[in-house]
Amino acid sequence: MNQMDAARSGKYTEEMEIVAKSENVDIEFIREGVAKGTIVIPKNKLRDRANICGIGKGLDIKVNALFGTSSDREQMPMEARKLKIAEEAGCHSFMDLSTGGDIDGMRKQSLSLATVAMGGVPIYQAGVEAIEKKGNLIAMTSDDIFETIEKQAADGLDFMAIHCALNFDIIHTLQRTGRVTDVVSRGGSFLTGWMLQNEKENPLYAEFDRLLKIMKAYDVVLSIGDAIRPGATADSLDEAQIKGLMVAGELTKRALEQGVQVMIEGPGHVPLNHIRNTIELQKKLCHNVPYYILGFLATDIAPGYDNITGAIGGAYAGLYGADFLCYLTPAEHLGLPNEEDVRTGVISTRIAAEAVNIARKREHVLKRQFNISRARVENDVQGQIDNAVYPDKYKNSLENINQQSDIQDEAMQVAAKYFMIG
Amino acid sequence: MNQMDAARSGKYTEEMEIVAKSENVDIEFIREGVAKGTIVIPKNKLRDRANICGIGKGLDIKVNALFGTSSDREQMPMEARKLKIAEEAGCHSFMDLSTGGDIDGMRKQSLSLATVAMGGVPIYQAGVEAIEKKGNLIAMTSDDIFETIEKQAADGLDFMAIHCALNFDIIHTLQRTGRVTDVVSRGGSFLTGWMLQNEKENPLYAEFDRLLKIMKAYDVVLSIGDAIRPGATADSLDEAQIKGLMVAGELTKRALEQGVQVMIEGPGHVPLNHIRNTIELQKKLCHNVPYYILGFLATDIAPGYDNITGAIGGAYAGLYGADFLCYLTPAEHLGLPNEEDVRTGVISTRIAAEAVNIARKREHVLKRQFNISRARVENDVQGQIDNAVYPDKYKNSLENINQQSDIQDEAMQVAAKYFMIG
Repeated sequence: MNQMDAARSGKYTEEMEIVAKSENVDIEFIREGVAKGTIVIPKNKLRDRANICGIGKGLDIKVNALFGTSSDREQMPMEARKLKIAEEAGCHSFMDLSTGGDIDGMRKQSLSLATVAMGGVPIYQAGVEAIEKKGNLIAMTSDDIFETIEKQAADGLDFMAIHCALNFDIIHTLQRTGRVTDVVSRGGSFLTGWMLQNEKENPLYAEFDRLLKIMKAYDVVLSIGDAIRPGATADSLDEAQIKGLMVAGELTKRALEQGVQVMIEGPGHVPLNHIRNTIELQKKLCHNVPYYILGFLATDIAPGYDNITGAIGGAYAGLYGADFLCYLTPAEHLGLPNEEDVRTGVISTRIAAEAVNIARKREHVLKRQFNISRARVENDVQGQIDNAVYPDKYKNSLENINQQSDIQDEAMQVAAKYFMIG
Repeated sequence: MNQMDAARSGKYTEEMEIVAKSENVDIEFIREGVAKGTIVIPKNKLRDRANICGIGKGLDIKVNALFGTSSDREQMPMEARKLKIAEEAGCHSFMDLSTGGDIDGMRKQSLSLATVAMGGVPIYQAGVEAIEKKGNLIAMTSDDIFETIEKQAADGLDFMAIHCALNFDIIHTLQRTGRVTDVVSRGGSFLTGWMLQNEKENPLYAEFDRLLKIMKAYDVVLSIGDAIRPGATADSLDEAQIKGLMVAGELTKRALEQGVQVMIEGPGHVPLNHIRNTIELQKKLCHNVPYYILGFLATDIAPGYDNITGAIGGAYAGLYGADFLCYLTPAEHLGLPNEEDVRTGVISTRIAAEAVNIARKREHVLKRQFNISRARVENDVQGQIDNAVYPDKYKNSLENINQQSDIQDEAMQVAAKYFMIG
């Protein structure tokens, strides 16, 4: 029995227990959330792993990392190291975005190494294999796509980005309105090109029930890919994006009816003044299922620093209800991330997540805030180390801190004499 | 005639012209803002410099950097290098926070090197000199404080953080309610200790008119220091902070009546869910004068990464009306920033500022967003360099970008064929 069926029949699964315990909430709250679809638990039936997490309403916001091989960078050992770095830095899941090299081998390597939930984007492999075996992307068939999805599900992926919320109505809207950046989603580009050249509807939309059957069979969480996400702040909340969100909402309803766990992937480039609106539209149109966002990037003009633009947008999005933040590394818009980029990406996004968890008044996070603040007042070094989300830089600076405590300390001590501490 | 007097008598100053031109707004808008106090132009009468900027309503949000010598780190050449780095990275002003070594010499060095507005915190020098000359901070006199302020004004400082919004009523409130982090403001600590031990009211509060006369004589912008700012998210919006804001509001009214330019310094540690409220309270209680914030730090638990927590809090604050962001470097809570920290601090804060300027629909910023986004779609390398706020990392990555354009490009090209670009 999968998570949603269990939840709807009133049963508690082992995974619900783990999630309830780690989030410090009642298991009934988790069961209800899974039953309604406001919480997902990515956990493929065929894959055992150490770390289970829930994503959605009333829980800590979660962080996803990305990596994978490309055709010109077949570096499976490096991707294995990135996975380890990302897990050590505290990501809750990751996605393998491989588009080249030994895609199957890479996925299997990651599944065997990862202790957290793992996702993928099957259309990449289907598209790349069509190019390799049939000479071009356009020759890819509907069966190619679904067979790849089933293969990846059988391998054990816990969630999949599937670009099913893309159809001719949306493409015609895009063509009519125009855009600064057209289609920037890779999966969205694959499918748009395929649809227009073949003059056929998107198989993932047209044969959505076929997709749901696979998701359900393996209990894979369907992450409805944001095929036409804005690639520039200027394109945010345009007609095509909203139509995409409405189609995603219709498909979400069908997924929920079939007992398939589902979340919605979101942008992308979103100016600060659109963030609240974007989240509230998604929640309303998509039946309050979790929102998994790529960013948001709050400005377009900071290539090399998109870990920061993403932390800004992600924190604000979380405040208004985003549930799951995909990391951005400094390499976004520049190239593939190296190991240090991966680490920086997870750290930056986790800091945004912590800011959100405070605003959500999550007790265990508030306790750490309190502890580190008291430790500062009391010059308690160990207390600061124990409660820092990333204590390394603090530890490395201890020598300097001790050196500069003269004037500040004298003044503080004068003042502190007169206060009850705490 | 100083800026505010000129504005109120309907005159346009050269500085108003420069600000209007650089902000691309009508000079009458600037004049009105200065007259009402919603805009300040920090420009000491006695100091000429290259770069004039306005701060306040309807303008780009601005970024301030901090540095200065401490008693154990008398490194004037290094501070000179930091100043240059901060200006190159695009700060609009900076403050000299020196608390040791040759404080006068350091200030004069910075004033001669800086092309942007320069601020300071005279109570530091007054306090340090009391310790040096009289053996302890408590021996500092009211005259010591005001003479230091006048000396620094005569040297040419354009704005000063003055902790005048601190009185016994606030201190008694603090003692009654308690706090996780008591007083974390250095100036606030100096004065709190002084007041309690001497059993005398804060001279900067009690003799506020004396302060206003100096500010007015040199046209120094009074930045009302946040003496009791929360040093932990748990202390945000407590009774003492709100009382401090109310006292700041009363003093602001008196400053405006006397024709003194004024802004309010704000926290500090502020959780995301308090940011809007904090800004709206400041604007309401302090007669809509500019809000100059130190952060906001959206979480307490990320020492070593407070440039990121500050960018998160600063961007969100800007969205709701903060006017001036003081940078946070990775060294916050660790020690004094080194040169690389200064650069990282300015860059991170500028990125937050750009995100705010987009949300404010500032035309020149929107144009750059559009240009870089179009340049991305068109693979226009020079267009991306020209419009990036910090193009160095992009430039350094060009070799990698060219290497990985195969699969992605093929798909994009297939899709792009069918779209009108733009």
